[in-house]
Amino acid sequence: MASIIMTKHSDSTIALAQELIERPSVTPEDFGCQQLMAERLAKLGFNNETMIFADTTNLWSRKGNAGPVFCFAGHTDVVPAGNLNLWQTPPFEPVIADGMLYGRGAADMKGSLAAMIVATEKFVAAHPDHLGSIAFLITSDEEGPFINGTTRVIDTLEARNEKIDYCIVGEPSSTAQVGDVIKNGRRGSISAELHIHGKQGHVAYPEQVNNPIHLAMPVLAELSQMHWDNGNSYFPATSFQITNISAGTGATNVVPGHLTASFNLRYSTELTAQMIVDKVEALLTQQALDFDIDWVFNGQPFITEPSAFLYSVVQAIETCCQITPELSTSGGTSDGRFIAPTGAQVVELGPCNATIHQVNECVSVKDLILLTDIYYQTLVNALTNQ
Amino acid sequence: MASIIMTKHSDSTIALAQELIERPSVTPEDFGCQQLMAERLAKLGFNNETMIFADTTNLWSRKGNAGPVFCFAGHTDVVPAGNLNLWQTPPFEPVIADGMLYGRGAADMKGSLAAMIVATEKFVAAHPDHLGSIAFLITSDEEGPFINGTTRVIDTLEARNEKIDYCIVGEPSSTAQVGDVIKNGRRGSISAELHIHGKQGHVAYPEQVNNPIHLAMPVLAELSQMHWDNGNSYFPATSFQITNISAGTGATNVVPGHLTASFNLRYSTELTAQMIVDKVEALLTQQALDFDIDWVFNGQPFITEPSAFLYSVVQAIETCCQITPELSTSGGTSDGRFIAPTGAQVVELGPCNATIHQVNECVSVKDLILLTDIYYQTLVNALTNQ
Repeated sequence: MASIIMTKHSDSTIALAQELIERPSVTPEDFGCQQLMAERLAKLGFNNETMIFADTTNLWSRKGNAGPVFCFAGHTDVVPAGNLNLWQTPPFEPVIADGMLYGRGAADMKGSLAAMIVATEKFVAAHPDHLGSIAFLITSDEEGPFINGTTRVIDTLEARNEKIDYCIVGEPSSTAQVGDVIKNGRRGSISAELHIHGKQGHVAYPEQVNNPIHLAMPVLAELSQMHWDNGNSYFPATSFQITNISAGTGATNVVPGHLTASFNLRYSTELTAQMIVDKVEALLTQQALDFDIDWVFNGQPFITEPSAFLYSVVQAIETCCQITPELSTSGGTSDGRFIAPTGAQVVELGPCNATIHQVNECVSVKDLILLTDIYYQTLVNALTNQ
Repeated sequence: MASIIMTKHSDSTIALAQELIERPSVTPEDFGCQQLMAERLAKLGFNNETMIFADTTNLWSRKGNAGPVFCFAGHTDVVPAGNLNLWQTPPFEPVIADGMLYGRGAADMKGSLAAMIVATEKFVAAHPDHLGSIAFLITSDEEGPFINGTTRVIDTLEARNEKIDYCIVGEPSSTAQVGDVIKNGRRGSISAELHIHGKQGHVAYPEQVNNPIHLAMPVLAELSQMHWDNGNSYFPATSFQITNISAGTGATNVVPGHLTASFNLRYSTELTAQMIVDKVEALLTQQALDFDIDWVFNGQPFITEPSAFLYSVVQAIETCCQITPELSTSGGTSDGRFIAPTGAQVVELGPCNATIHQVNECVSVKDLILLTDIYYQTLVNALTNQ
C-alpha cells in the first residue's frame, strides 16, 4: 500500500466513518455508534428516542413536526469480520490506503451513516427553515434476524400514527461508481420447508414401502417448472428455487420414511405471499401427499414508482455525478421492506457494494464525499423550494 | 424362560450348532468354524481345500470325483451382535430355552451348517455307494462385502473346470414353519450413485445459477415412474427405488452446485444389468445433463426352473413335513447369485427367518432336526436310485 493514514481525516464524513468503524458493532451490538450519531443530531435540534427491543438497539431521531417526513434509514451493526488472517489491516481499525477507507462496515454501511449525518448538518446549516421534518431510523439488527430492529420501530411509529413520507436507505446500491444504481423497490421473499412422509422399508420389498422420494419428485418437478408470472415493468418474473433436498438413511438398500425439501421464491408485485402459499398447498393437496410445510415470510415486495421524491434523488445524482442512475429492484432484501408497507416512498442509495461482507471491506474516500453531496442535494431537492 | 440348557444337546445337529455358535465369527472372521466342519467331513472321506483370500476364509470340500456334483453352500460368518444389553442371553453362548436355540447365527446360518454336516454323515453311512459327488462351499464373508468369498471360490473352480450341478444354499428361507418356502431364484440387484452438476449461487440472482435440483427432478420423476417390465412367471415386475437424495448447503438463500441421488433396482430375468445401464444413461444424456454415475453390480438374477433336482427338494419336504413348499424368488440377495451363473441349479432352503440379524436370534430345535431330515432326504432323492 502506498500510504496508510490512521489519524482522523480532514473531511467530516470520512472522520465520522472512521469513528464508527472503530466500534466493533457486530450484530446485534451497536457499541455506541448510535450514541455518537445522536449527539451530532441533538446539536442540530433533533429529538432522539432510543428504542431497545431485546438485544437490539434502535434510534429514532427527528427534527421538526411538519410533513413531509424525510427519513434516512440504516444500520450500525456489521457482519462478523471472518478470518482475521485474511485481513490486510485489522477490521475495526479504520485505515486509508490508496484512496480507500478499509474496515468492517466501511461500505455496509457506516460510510453511508457518516454521509447522512454530515449531509444533514450541512443542510440544516444552509437551510434552517427547510420544509417538513428530517428523521433517522437506525437499527443494530439489520444483518441478523431482523426481528427487534426496524420492524419494531415501524410498529411503534405506526401505533402513534407517525408516518414517514420519503425514505433513503443507505444500503450500498452502487456497482461501478457511486450513484450508478439506486433501488426503487425490492422483490418479496418467501421460504418454506416441506416434509413429505412415506413409509420406510427394505428395497427388496417394494410392496411394503411408500417411497417419499418418488412421491415428491413429480410435485417438485412441477413446482420447479411452474410459470409464476411475467413480472412487470419494475420486476423480473418471479423466481422459484429449491435450495435443499434431503432423504435417505445412507444405506443403499433402505427406502427412507420421509423427505425434506426447502425452497425460496423471490416474487414480484404481481403476487402476494398468500397467493404463493395457496398455489403450493393446493398442488400438494391435489397430489394427495402426506405433508407438512413451514412457511417463512421474509418480506413483501415493494416499489417506489416515479414521483417527485424519486425524481429528487435522480436529479441529485445527475447534479453531483453527471450520470443518470439505473433504477433497479434486483438483489436481496433490505430493511426497506419494513418501511415501504407504511406508505413511505423508499429508495436505496449508497456506495459501491463490491466488497461488502468480505474481508478487506473498503469504500472509496472520494465516493463517500460524493455520497454526502448527493444526500445533501436530495435534501435540497425534497425539502426546499429551490 | 422355563428351562435353560447350556450343556451339549443329545441331538448331533443341535450339538454341532452349539459348537459353531460358541465361535464369535463376525464377518469376515471364521473363528475355527470351517476347521470344525472340515474335520467332520474328512472322517467321511471328503477332500478339504481351504482357500484364503485377503481377510476371508473359505472351504471347498468334496467327496468323490463323479458327477453330478451336489453342493451344500453356506457361510460361517455372522452379523455383529448389536446392543448386548438387549440380548436376554450372551449372543455367543448358545442357550436352549422353551425349545428354541438362542445365539447369533442360530438361524443365519450355523443351524443350517450343522444340519448339512449331520445329514451328510447319515447319508454317507446309509448310502456309501451313492451317485455323484457331495461338496461343501463355505465362506466367512457372506454378510460383508462378498468380494473374497463365494465368488472367488467359484472363480477358482471355474478356472479348473470344476462344476457344481445341484446346490442347496442354507439361507433361512422358511417363514412360518420349516420348509414352507424355498427360493428357486433371486432377483438381480443393481445400484447407482448419480451426481448431477449445476452452478451454485445466491437465490436472489436466478439468472446466475443452474439449479441441479431443478435439473434432476424431471429425470428422477421419470425414472421413478418408469415401467421396466411385467416380470414373468417366476419374478415380480422389476422395481426401481431411489434410496438417497441430497443437495443443498443448508442455507435457505443459496442454490447448491450439485445433487447426489442413489437408487437400486431389483430386476427380473426379463432384463440384464446392461439394459438397465443403457436405459438410464440414455435418459440422462437425452436431457443434456452434466452428470456422472457410478454403478454397483450386486448380482444378476437367476432362476432354477422345474427340474429333477428341484423336484427332489420339493419331494423331500413333502416326505418330511407333509407340506408342499412355495417356490419364491422374493427377498434380498444371497451367494446363490455367484453359483447360479456357472450353470448350477440353485435352491435356497433353511429354517425360519423371523429373527435373523436381530437381537435374541433363535431357531427352533425341532426345526433344525427336521431340516437335517430334509437335507438327508434330498440327498437320497438326488444321489440314489431309490
